[in-house]
Amino acid sequence: MISDVIREKAEIVNREIERILTVNEPEGLYRATRHYLKAGGKRLRPVITLIAAEALGRDSRKVLHAGIAIETIHNFTLIHDDIMDEDEMRRGVKTVHTLYGIPTAILAGDTLYAEAFEILAKSDAEPSNVVRAVSKLARVCVEICEGQYMDMSFEERNDVSESEYIEMVRKKTGVLIGISASIPAILFGESREVEEALWNYGIYSGIGFQIHDDLLDITGKDKIGKDWGSDIVEGKKTLIVIKAFEQGVELETFGKGKASREELERDIRKLVDCGAVDYARNKAREYIELAKSQLDVLDDTPAKSHLLELADYLIERDY
Amino acid sequence: MISDVIREKAEIVNREIERILTVNEPEGLYRATRHYLKAGGKRLRPVITLIAAEALGRDSRKVLHAGIAIETIHNFTLIHDDIMDEDEMRRGVKTVHTLYGIPTAILAGDTLYAEAFEILAKSDAEPSNVVRAVSKLARVCVEICEGQYMDMSFEERNDVSESEYIEMVRKKTGVLIGISASIPAILFGESREVEEALWNYGIYSGIGFQIHDDLLDITGKDKIGKDWGSDIVEGKKTLIVIKAFEQGVELETFGKGKASREELERDIRKLVDCGAVDYARNKAREYIELAKSQLDVLDDTPAKSHLLELADYLIERDY
Repeated sequence: MISDVIREKAEIVNREIERILTVNEPEGLYRATRHYLKAGGKRLRPVITLIAAEALGRDSRKVLHAGIAIETIHNFTLIHDDIMDEDEMRRGVKTVHTLYGIPTAILAGDTLYAEAFEILAKSDAEPSNVVRAVSKLARVCVEICEGQYMDMSFEERNDVSESEYIEMVRKKTGVLIGISASIPAILFGESREVEEALWNYGIYSGIGFQIHDDLLDITGKDKIGKDWGSDIVEGKKTLIVIKAFEQGVELETFGKGKASREELERDIRKLVDCGAVDYARNKAREYIELAKSQLDVLDDTPAKSHLLELADYLIERDY
Repeated sequence: MISDVIREKAEIVNREIERILTVNEPEGLYRATRHYLKAGGKRLRPVITLIAAEALGRDSRKVLHAGIAIETIHNFTLIHDDIMDEDEMRRGVKTVHTLYGIPTAILAGDTLYAEAFEILAKSDAEPSNVVRAVSKLARVCVEICEGQYMDMSFEERNDVSESEYIEMVRKKTGVLIGISASIPAILFGESREVEEALWNYGIYSGIGFQIHDDLLDITGKDKIGKDWGSDIVEGKKTLIVIKAFEQGVELETFGKGKASREELERDIRKLVDCGAVDYARNKAREYIELAKSQLDVLDDTPAKSHLLELADYLIERDY
């Protein structure tokens, strides 16, 4: 089962995170900085990095730090995004700014940001490849910011198109999974063809992953560790909502800040009935198939099978 | 005159900043991201980088991008610090979050953060030296966060000691000037002795610089481009205030959020009369002398003289 593979690799990641991302002085800052890291999470990104290294026939231990650097960046974006979105819950725990205040939460994110580059720079690889990896991770971070900005600015617009949504998601979610999959190719100096195949595998997987995440927000009920239906009441332009709006569907709780369970259920019924939920589900599947087809350039190995299964898993998980 | 040297080098820096840090899409994000960069500033940090390269007998053009990376980090910290400190003015213009809102300001800082590492990674130097520079800049960024956190937490304490203040300033201000001066040594692969001498030159200069900055807040009147006396009304534990408190001086406007010009002038008179202002001024001078003495390991060159003059300049400027 791929979920067992993920769990086993996540354990390796967790042990190393615990070893290198310690609580230093000033303690108040580091407690905030480590808050989400300690709250768990599936470690999907570093797990992808480890499996991708194996799929290249390489020693995955040599990319463990690169994977953790990426997970660290992911955690920084969660902290800052939660401030921007004013979210109160994440992974079943209170958000960092809710617990520690906005100034400390900003600094906690900033601290992780730097630690990520410090960890990546320690990678056991050819220095010229490490420089390329740093450069690529930095570019990815710029694009994540652009994606998050697009996501926020979409809230003020009612004419967001599907292709704008895909571009936003590619930047906000895709590129970090893209680098998770391709950073072993960069660090081991593989051909550009292989690097690009893994990059695209990650990008398309990430888009499918995000569409599925949007679906979970309205179908996942209580398993997801944050408020159910929060995307709708916050007025997020998800693919589901974009499709529904195209058909003239009106949602009474959309962007209202809060709603009763009954009101939300009525709106969600409308999203299902107009076919928008099915449309999004099919799109997610399409992107995952596209992701998997990228891996044709790799030799058939157990690790390659894991990457294929993992892509499917991204849109099958219910949390 | 050192001010002419600074101006001339700053011009070189500004031209390259304009060339590489452009306004991209989404424009709303990049306008916020470039706001302080366009508002000017003395570019002291990259200027120090250029002069330090010359003092090593090297081609300063090869460290221009490293200097700009450091200036970019500096600008990111200004944006985030202004959010945390709730400051409304900076360099004579409105602060980023005042103009664009807190979410966009957080993202603008995050964008600069990544751009800095991307620019540094493009340095024209041995890859192994570039990796070391990335690692060092990342560590500096972690320490800046720690310093800013200390600065904020000092506001809640009345027993901050002089040594705690110096440690805070070393992290908040010193280390970024330390890397400005030492990054040419890292990139050109100089001896650790030379690298450390330049690092310490920067650290001590930075501490003197910050103490002088604190002095300007209460003696600089209207030239400094931000609110006069703002450190006092915001309750900042500067060396001046720490010294005054040690002697039992009571300030009526301290930490009050706002104050009339008359009230502020009364408090500042007290700070002068108890000797705290003179004490801080002497401390700033001591640190600058300590900074200059670090450069004994370098050959006497015009560039070395410029570094010595620049250290003096840091505590002589009136804005």
